[in-house]
Amino acid sequence: MDKRYELIIVGGGPAGMTAAVYASRAGLKTLMIEGSAPGGKLIKTAEISNWPGITEINGADLAFKMFEHSTAFGAEADFKEVIKVDKLEDDIIVECADNDRLISKAVIIATGTKERLLNIPNEERLTGKGVSYCAVCDGAFFRDKIVTVVGGGNSALEESLYLTTFAKKIYLIIRRDVFRGDELAQQKVINNPKIEIIRKHIPINIIDKDGRVNALEIEHVETKKKAIIETDGIFPYIGADPITSMVKHLPILDKDGYMIVDDHMMTSVRGIFGAGDVNSKYLRQVVTAAADGAIAAQAVFHLVRE
Amino acid sequence: MDKRYELIIVGGGPAGMTAAVYASRAGLKTLMIEGSAPGGKLIKTAEISNWPGITEINGADLAFKMFEHSTAFGAEADFKEVIKVDKLEDDIIVECADNDRLISKAVIIATGTKERLLNIPNEERLTGKGVSYCAVCDGAFFRDKIVTVVGGGNSALEESLYLTTFAKKIYLIIRRDVFRGDELAQQKVINNPKIEIIRKHIPINIIDKDGRVNALEIEHVETKKKAIIETDGIFPYIGADPITSMVKHLPILDKDGYMIVDDHMMTSVRGIFGAGDVNSKYLRQVVTAAADGAIAAQAVFHLVRE
Repeated sequence: MDKRYELIIVGGGPAGMTAAVYASRAGLKTLMIEGSAPGGKLIKTAEISNWPGITEINGADLAFKMFEHSTAFGAEADFKEVIKVDKLEDDIIVECADNDRLISKAVIIATGTKERLLNIPNEERLTGKGVSYCAVCDGAFFRDKIVTVVGGGNSALEESLYLTTFAKKIYLIIRRDVFRGDELAQQKVINNPKIEIIRKHIPINIIDKDGRVNALEIEHVETKKKAIIETDGIFPYIGADPITSMVKHLPILDKDGYMIVDDHMMTSVRGIFGAGDVNSKYLRQVVTAAADGAIAAQAVFHLVRE
Repeated sequence: MDKRYELIIVGGGPAGMTAAVYASRAGLKTLMIEGSAPGGKLIKTAEISNWPGITEINGADLAFKMFEHSTAFGAEADFKEVIKVDKLEDDIIVECADNDRLISKAVIIATGTKERLLNIPNEERLTGKGVSYCAVCDGAFFRDKIVTVVGGGNSALEESLYLTTFAKKIYLIIRRDVFRGDELAQQKVINNPKIEIIRKHIPINIIDKDGRVNALEIEHVETKKKAIIETDGIFPYIGADPITSMVKHLPILDKDGYMIVDDHMMTSVRGIFGAGDVNSKYLRQVVTAAADGAIAAQAVFHLVRE
């Protein structure tokens, strides 16, 4: 028999977990489904300094606190992949990779984003063999080694600083000659003797030796002059794409695949909501994701019960 | 000489404090001005169960943590009343009750809301003499006494529960026969033997004895039948109004006085932003106020520096 809920939340990051808190406190029969570990991008973040009320906390610790909270008022949590979300008459159907089929009055998509690939030769083949998209997960494998971070935003800056804990040297490759990240992080990077900033370059090819990353070929964006830097690890932080394949058949995504929602976080399909980084929005932060989750859960409550 | 800032935040609640975190981390010269104690409505709240990551915390404790955080990265805090915010050429001018005049590139109004009065006879005269708009502040004065809460939303429910710690009996007067508050809080109120719910009534007159509240006269909304209940305290929780008198001369308020902002939290006056409960918005919660503050600060950064 199909399992029925009043709300299914797809994704267990800050948006999904906050939605679970609000929905369960409002008395909705709620299930949160997460594809990997709860916490979303939090568990891939070393130190967080802008979660209000906590001057500095490890991402995984904050994730754990939020997960405990999210299930404290009766919301269920399950761990598996959702492959399709669709509307069938007044219900929303959630199909899972394990062939489970769930039915709900409403669904909040809170799947977040996935780090973007460099799209250069050998990247895919060497992922896990020196190429990593998560400094927090894999940084410790590069103790006393040379690593290269690609990107000029806050993530690239923060992960470069994080990697100084392990690596003896960090190259930071940025396309422009200025960073996009915040000034405090910039100053820390610029003042760190382990970090060498290589400006106005892009990566064009990864070179391996014995099946592991050995060097990165880069190119100057103006002169097109090429150079090779020896490196044991490569951490691309050049942006992210939304995880919305489960709703790609519905007319609720913008041209980049982000969800288009109103100020109640509802898409144009009644009963399907979006919350957090997966939404088309101005600022993607833990606190803005959490707020989206609260708003979406409140709107679901009104939709389902009134 | 006039003091100059890149950002002045008017109001030190969750929205203002989060804006201070984001703005100071981004390197903006930032001043936060609060009229009373930092924390805004937090310090008037007993227990908070929906701040993500903390299953239950005292409002004043969370306020203290946020205030520490808000000034950890260089933002200044000052405590006084702001009476007018205006635009003068490219600057925003902030006039204070102490005749201080400050100049800033941008201002975020994060003043929140003020509890609404019942507007019945003797209310004003007996405020502080049995009439209180803050159960957390004044609840302890009613140990083993009878108190009356007016309102059917979450605030009324939560404050009634809070008052059971002190009072021997709580009347809860609601205009409708159902509550607007969330189900969990409703169930707790209904199951609490100290709380007696009086449905479909409104308060019409406060009766005093020796200059202190002694009874409340109420009226049935349909039959108009009047009744008098003996009570030592009256706590109105019937909603709130925005605190926007300092910008009332500007065309940025809706008909109820709330600030109209875009998705960057900016009003139609370039450089003047709104964040938190003071904005016209769907859901007023600590987490949504904090998110507004983050977004506004980020938008100010781009406006001022780019």
